[in-house]
Amino acid sequence: MGTTQLEPVPEPKYWHLKTVLSEALDSEFSVGEILPNERDLAARFGVARATLRQALEQLELEGRLQRRRGVGTTVAPPRMGVSVGTDPHSWPGGPEDAWQPVDCTTAVPPAAVADALGTAREESVHTVRRSRVSHGRPVAAELLYVPPSSVPDLTGIDAPSGAARARAVLRELQRLELERQDSAVELGSARADDAKELDRLPGAPVLVVTTRFVAGGRTAALSVATYRADTCRLTFGDFGGVQVHHGPQARAS
Amino acid sequence: MGTTQLEPVPEPKYWHLKTVLSEALDSEFSVGEILPNERDLAARFGVARATLRQALEQLELEGRLQRRRGVGTTVAPPRMGVSVGTDPHSWPGGPEDAWQPVDCTTAVPPAAVADALGTAREESVHTVRRSRVSHGRPVAAELLYVPPSSVPDLTGIDAPSGAARARAVLRELQRLELERQDSAVELGSARADDAKELDRLPGAPVLVVTTRFVAGGRTAALSVATYRADTCRLTFGDFGGVQVHHGPQARAS
Repeated sequence: MGTTQLEPVPEPKYWHLKTVLSEALDSEFSVGEILPNERDLAARFGVARATLRQALEQLELEGRLQRRRGVGTTVAPPRMGVSVGTDPHSWPGGPEDAWQPVDCTTAVPPAAVADALGTAREESVHTVRRSRVSHGRPVAAELLYVPPSSVPDLTGIDAPSGAARARAVLRELQRLELERQDSAVELGSARADDAKELDRLPGAPVLVVTTRFVAGGRTAALSVATYRADTCRLTFGDFGGVQVHHGPQARAS
Repeated sequence: MGTTQLEPVPEPKYWHLKTVLSEALDSEFSVGEILPNERDLAARFGVARATLRQALEQLELEGRLQRRRGVGTTVAPPRMGVSVGTDPHSWPGGPEDAWQPVDCTTAVPPAAVADALGTAREESVHTVRRSRVSHGRPVAAELLYVPPSSVPDLTGIDAPSGAARARAVLRELQRLELERQDSAVELGSARADDAKELDRLPGAPVLVVTTRFVAGGRTAALSVATYRADTCRLTFGDFGGVQVHHGPQARAS
């Protein structure tokens, strides 16, 4: 319709191809279907393979296509709404927490994390690794940094490491009174260990959600969570089942 | 340090290069500095240009580098924290609104928007275009969809179009009692008109924030806002000046 464009803007070739491909996906393909190979697609649309590849990358960014190792390029299902920070007063590990503890180590965090926590740069903190599964598939990986001062009664006797240790740290955290939690969302690329957990290649686009848990006027814990950007739509508040768009191409066509 | 990795994961070549480049950025370059050209960089690090390009793309995703037309690749400043939906009870156009109205048209919205608004598919709605500037630079572009039923007293006499019309729509919206606003964040690629407004190429990665404004038990307005993913970190709640990381490379080094 183009009615909301202020004025015509010249579009690169791959951009036009993306629009054409997007329409073909709607009309000719169903979710999960494997696309023809690049050579055939380039021939069908009369474009160079480099142009085709750019258009496919765009559609991947928008969540329309998924590239899966050993499978090929498939038509993606609509992104899942994954609820983030619904309750500003609930600690990690609370009754409605969607995260599963995987491991816990004690390690010196990155300098920026130490600064945010207010710990000394060389000070070790509890580092809880958790994962989040939705509809049976891994959607996010998290590192939760907890300074020893936030869990002073934690002892190493019962559970020195692993998921049991992680649960012990989370349990101790609940003793503090949480004032609020604040979050920030930004684009990132998956680190190797996260990528493996999320079944992606290192460097795949991810949405990084950093959450600061404030208790007693200071940051008592800090979470850095990495969500798959291809399959997830992060929801804040009661967004429910609203499916406003499937990639921005639905904004104004 | 690698202390938080569960087990070693094989890393692609460009990934290792990215880490090396990232360290070079920290030690040898300052913010705003222009990087040597690709040929020289590839030679310096002894890699193929394709590998170099992949590593540069990663660093761009993580907000470390910016590619600017006519300038080249420069070292990016830390991302700006841009506050999103701080007050769940304030309408667009309220006193603390960071958005500037640009234009207003009446147009049939995309089908998914009509469905979310509960309007008929062929029904026209007010479509307010707004832009958001932070630190003197454009950071986001928005389309705000307002069904006529949400602003029944709006007349076309005083301001039939343009920014004045947009302000009239926003003013009329304030008459409704806002119950709450819910948001979702996902990765997208910039449409041509947004890209122009944001000084990016079409298809550049953006963070798309969809916000539903609920009044009288129904969606009274719907905002689809496109934020530059390279320069913005979206903050929810009182995240303040916390700079936890500059791209995920700071998570665990």
